[in-house]
Amino acid sequence: MTVSGGMLHVETAGDGQIVDLTEAVRSVVRTTGAERGVAIVFARGSTVAVTTMEYEPGTVADLTALLERLVPRSPDEGVWEHNALNGDSNAHAHARAALIGPSVSVPIVEGELLLGTWQQVVLLDFDDRPRQREVTVQVLV
Amino acid sequence: MTVSGGMLHVETAGDGQIVDLTEAVRSVVRTTGAERGVAIVFARGSTVAVTTMEYEPGTVADLTALLERLVPRSPDEGVWEHNALNGDSNAHAHARAALIGPSVSVPIVEGELLLGTWQQVVLLDFDDRPRQREVTVQVLV
Amino acid sequence: MTVSGGMLHVETAGDGQIVDLTEAVRSVVRTTGAERGVAIVFARGSTVAVTTMEYEPGTVADLTALLERLVPRSPDEGVWEHNALNGDSNAHAHARAALIGPSVSVPIVEGELLLGTWQQVVLLDFDDRPRQREVTVQVLV
Repeated sequence: MTVSGGMLHVETAGDGQIVDLTEAVRSVVRTTGAERGVAIVFARGSTVAVTTMEYEPGTVADLTALLERLVPRSPDEGVWEHNALNGDSNAHAHARAALIGPSVSVPIVEGELLLGTWQQVVLLDFDDRPRQREVTVQVLV
Repeated sequence: MTVSGGMLHVETAGDGQIVDLTEAVRSVVRTTGAERGVAIVFARGSTVAVTTMEYEPGTVADLTALLERLVPRSPDEGVWEHNALNGDSNAHAHARAALIGPSVSVPIVEGELLLGTWQQVVLLDFDDRPRQREVTVQVLV
Repeated sequence: MTVSGGMLHVETAGDGQIVDLTEAVRSVVRTTGAERGVAIVFARGSTVAVTTMEYEPGTVADLTALLERLVPRSPDEGVWEHNALNGDSNAHAHARAALIGPSVSVPIVEGELLLGTWQQVVLLDFDDRPRQREVTVQVLV
């Protein structure tokens, strides 16, 4: 049995909130005692994504504004079919999450995540309401 | 030897068709008997991608329309260089696939894929003609 | 101990340069002697990304132009907050890297990367200056 890990429970405000998961992922890695391997971080749900970025107010604001421009909550023309067909309001969240994807894999070397100095593991909750999210961290050694 | 898995053969219509792979991935996972681990799903080819999304007609239509708007088959201005240089017609497919990426990693807990209720593993075939695709599912435990 | 692998050191010109990593990743895989498994390729840093694509002049030019259009270095309106707040000039690089993501997982079957014929593993360095990049290749078997 070489997989170990944990489940993170993350409360978010939704609406595109970006949450820095790095310390929590690091804690799971330390708990496993893994010296060398990979931490696979996966967010459950179809309106949430995981990636890495420098987590600071500027980049957070930039990515938020960029996604609102590229994948707007309310399209300038046409409609979101998901909303029209299902009486829903989070179609933009589904599209953003599918583009960015739910998982990222981070190497572990000498017991530490091998991230860059300004590189954090983040969750992006695109849903249009507060959510309780489950993030799985699995450590493969 | 802790890697096992299988190869899925998927016939697509191309042209952006989105195919739900979830049941097929689940079958591979069950075949391996893995109780805890990660299923890594990878699509072979440079005009095909893998991600997760809620697979329903609305989100499928929305993602299709979004990609046509952001990465159009025929640009409003300029040309796709891949098409111009190679006498080809699927440059948009290459760009879309590179953006979304070819792989996704899904946790396995208690023998089941730990997807959200409305979260499916999907293949997006962006090529402009029908294709036979190979998708590898590898289970790491 | 089932993880082995290596670190690639890649000098780039930055400014969106796309570097084909395939042969280097293949070398690491051969060094490990892995017959079946997964190679996880991860780029360190918050202005660099990894994906797969057909690496040829047309697709490279197309992806470069597409990203400049979708995530421009200088926005038509507004500002990049990262640049404004930090006196920096690479906000676009941060946003592009977060969108594409830092990692990709490629299957290994019979000792070889199971890529498509026209599918290469590439690094995209979006920073606005030359960089020395570290890319980790970890082989899980």
